[in-house]
Amino acid sequence: MSVEQGCLLRVYIGEGDKQAGRPLHEWIIAQAHARQLSGATAYRGLMGFGPDTRVIHTFKIERLAENLPITIEIVDSREKVDEFLAFIETQVRSGLVITLQDVEIRHLQGRPEH
Amino acid sequence: MSVEQGCLLRVYIGEGDKQAGRPLHEWIIAQAHARQLSGATAYRGLMGFGPDTRVIHTFKIERLAENLPITIEIVDSREKVDEFLAFIETQVRSGLVITLQDVEIRHLQGRPEH
Amino acid sequence: MSVEQGCLLRVYIGEGDKQAGRPLHEWIIAQAHARQLSGATAYRGLMGFGPDTRVIHTFKIERLAENLPITIEIVDSREKVDEFLAFIETQVRSGLVITLQDVEIRHLQGRPEH
Repeated sequence: MSVEQGCLLRVYIGEGDKQAGRPLHEWIIAQAHARQLSGATAYRGLMGFGPDTRVIHTFKIERLAENLPITIEIVDSREKVDEFLAFIETQVRSGLVITLQDVEIRHLQGRPEH
Repeated sequence: MSVEQGCLLRVYIGEGDKQAGRPLHEWIIAQAHARQLSGATAYRGLMGFGPDTRVIHTFKIERLAENLPITIEIVDSREKVDEFLAFIETQVRSGLVITLQDVEIRHLQGRPEH
Repeated sequence: MSVEQGCLLRVYIGEGDKQAGRPLHEWIIAQAHARQLSGATAYRGLMGFGPDTRVIHTFKIERLAENLPITIEIVDSREKVDEFLAFIETQVRSGLVITLQDVEIRHLQGRPEH
């Protein structure tokens, strides 16, 4: 079992966000793949809100559901994640909220085949 | 790029849990919005179990699937999350399991429009 | 409100992964339940890639979507999670990527019924 220190990046966007003519979450995952980060996953939330929906003064559950939240998780070394963020910031058209956390990454070997 | 220290709160409930006549996850998200927390998202799990399903002595995957797990994530400062938890604890009828983690929050600006 | 230090384990697999004739995520959740870990949830991602899909030299979004990512989250004490990982590593046939993070676990009581 190998152990290394890494970083978990989470990017909070909406399903309707676009970049370069495609959904923003697809674009971010494709960029992470092209830059050979070790893994990335996008999840769709059931409902939610973010700083951008602060401007909705009347809270309407139905309205928020129109643009469902998407969360993207990327795991790699802190250095590679920081480089990726610097690149993303030069490319995206609108502001993004992201979080970073230290994680311990382990590669479990599994048992030998019989 | 602005950087701040924050807190990630995760609340583990079931899709069938209710509060004030509506699904508990909707109620929690609405409360987080009303109290102006910076963001909240609910996710539905494929399957799972929690401390409350400990009482099921025979593990039946089909049965657990009847009340799918919901996880709610809320990000804000530690102070605002603690206040929110204190409020939630006075309101909810049944016990809740939650986790807290420190996170670094960044607001990426994006590039200027051409 | 009780507080304890715990550990969040995340296991990154694919929907098509199998173990003992069933989906790997079902098998892992069943093992976590049998070993009385305090909670486990499996989530399905919209899209993603991991170290194993590194071998795809041409990135095709459609192809990656055929085996959707599954993330399993398990929360318990560090000791119980480490024991669980050691067990899992002796059982699974293929390598697994996992992450570990320290979390604070709280059990909220809820208000007394009227």
